[in-house]
Amino acid sequence: MGTALTVPATDNGHNVLLVGTPLDRKVIAEMHRRGGSHPKLDEPCSRLVTAIPVDDLGSEHLEGADIVIVGVSSPGIGWAVDLLNNLMVNRLPVAFVTKGLAVRGKGLATYAETLPPQLRQMYAFIGIGGPCIARELANRQPTASIYGCKDLQVAERFAALMRTDYYRLSITTDDTGVEACAALKNFFAIGVSAMQTRYPDKKRGGGQSKNPTAAAFTQATLEMARLCERLGGHPATAFGLAGLGDLHVTVGGGRNSRLGHGLGRNQTIMDLMSNELAGETVEGVDTARALAPMILGNAAIKMESDDYFPLTFAIMDSILEQKSFVLDFANLIVR
Amino acid sequence: MGTALTVPATDNGHNVLLVGTPLDRKVIAEMHRRGGSHPKLDEPCSRLVTAIPVDDLGSEHLEGADIVIVGVSSPGIGWAVDLLNNLMVNRLPVAFVTKGLAVRGKGLATYAETLPPQLRQMYAFIGIGGPCIARELANRQPTASIYGCKDLQVAERFAALMRTDYYRLSITTDDTGVEACAALKNFFAIGVSAMQTRYPDKKRGGGQSKNPTAAAFTQATLEMARLCERLGGHPATAFGLAGLGDLHVTVGGGRNSRLGHGLGRNQTIMDLMSNELAGETVEGVDTARALAPMILGNAAIKMESDDYFPLTFAIMDSILEQKSFVLDFANLIVR
Repeated sequence: MGTALTVPATDNGHNVLLVGTPLDRKVIAEMHRRGGSHPKLDEPCSRLVTAIPVDDLGSEHLEGADIVIVGVSSPGIGWAVDLLNNLMVNRLPVAFVTKGLAVRGKGLATYAETLPPQLRQMYAFIGIGGPCIARELANRQPTASIYGCKDLQVAERFAALMRTDYYRLSITTDDTGVEACAALKNFFAIGVSAMQTRYPDKKRGGGQSKNPTAAAFTQATLEMARLCERLGGHPATAFGLAGLGDLHVTVGGGRNSRLGHGLGRNQTIMDLMSNELAGETVEGVDTARALAPMILGNAAIKMESDDYFPLTFAIMDSILEQKSFVLDFANLIVR
Repeated sequence: MGTALTVPATDNGHNVLLVGTPLDRKVIAEMHRRGGSHPKLDEPCSRLVTAIPVDDLGSEHLEGADIVIVGVSSPGIGWAVDLLNNLMVNRLPVAFVTKGLAVRGKGLATYAETLPPQLRQMYAFIGIGGPCIARELANRQPTASIYGCKDLQVAERFAALMRTDYYRLSITTDDTGVEACAALKNFFAIGVSAMQTRYPDKKRGGGQSKNPTAAAFTQATLEMARLCERLGGHPATAFGLAGLGDLHVTVGGGRNSRLGHGLGRNQTIMDLMSNELAGETVEGVDTARALAPMILGNAAIKMESDDYFPLTFAIMDSILEQKSFVLDFANLIVR
């Protein structure tokens, strides 16, 4: 995703320094060999992109930057924070593609809350959300995303650097909501995708019933809005690009969706993670584990679980308790 | 859909009188020949269903009924109103599967507003919404729907007659919103479906890019909420089963979706309606025609069209002006 974001940036004439983590050495080397083309994006980078390994990164590179964009995977977030604390000499806005939920005290919080106190030179936190498959953005397919920052002027300045006729950007002050939805959508995509394989119908296109998936998609959006609010975000954010938009694209393919398809066919998570998905990181599973203390330890949420969180609990049970995925539609009582 | 609704009703032990319009004579005859099975639903009706042609319907049949459900197509709504005015002797709630928008004065209104003054013996109007393919409901696949009635107790009494473990019912006082969304979702499904064929991507499952469809689905939901509000409904209804839920299932297949696919491939509506879709009723096209005076004649809506209604105008242009469908993603500035 980091590399894909260089495409709109350089189409707008900006110079981009693309920095690989220690895990990206092969990718950086291959990009140089392929004339600047990332192996997972079928589109060469602009000449305005300079790809370097992190060992070559110095304070001087960051000094004149307009913005820093962090695109590491969530287990690398601590590493990225340390690096930036070592190298950033002046205050800059930092935008995050990395998504996750972090424990804060007895509760849970998004990076919008946990990172600002950790990053001394971060002028403002920006969360990037919305339905964006990296390869499609790199191929300049129309893509709508949303940037969240408590300081709306900072969000708009960043959006102005990045916006093109194919990369459409909205802005919001609800950085917390954008971050919450970005993590939650992976989790809910598992449950919605399970409905795509649970009720076969030979007479339907795709061989599956459509009523159950549409019901689960609606339910996922509503529960995402409720959890988003409990994580400090605005529920309306779940009804926009960062919520239902990103959920839509995530249900459409990827590892969370493949896990859901297996659960829908009555496989267990243990079975799936040791076979079809062996060695893969399924982000919605990490989100489920992160959510567990907040949801299972919260008497208020447990009280209203039947009415408010039937899909959340069905996914939690299948992942944490290794049970078969069971969404009892008799529990769905939605607006 | 009328016949499909007999399945949960009779599973709950209710007797149902299923009345065919003059256009349904063949269907009624075939149901009798097939032992009660509707030719489009692969499920025989219960013995609690008595199927009769409308000529056999008398006041005595309606007298002891709990409720009347109207399932004619929208061009038949005037006929149904006249019939009920002739035959209903006592006041009963009437629920409508039929959807449409009707001209009222200089504006537009849903059946929730236009039918109550016309139906003398209607005790309460109930709108039925949500993602429900009739055949899947008849096959008892899990289906979530929503009943809207200004009198919530009436909605709940009707829901209690119909609710089963596979037919999940929510209720709302926003009958107007349910009706508005039920009509609008056909219209927006055309535009979202166009995105499913407009941006081919050989490397993606299904051969199509997914970012544009997810963006358009989000945009459709937001514009549906805005139009729902202008039609007198609550915008939140668009973010539930009647709105995005029903949109989800409508984009998944059917005539509105097929029309959209053709538009996405740069065919014109004239071309499509005289070839692939010759002789078929595409409800979203009727909705576009009904919306035209409200949208094209409304200076306030036109003023905010770029920011608020880019998808609405793109669909209107392709249907009413016979233009190629063009959704300029540069116009999408969403929340």
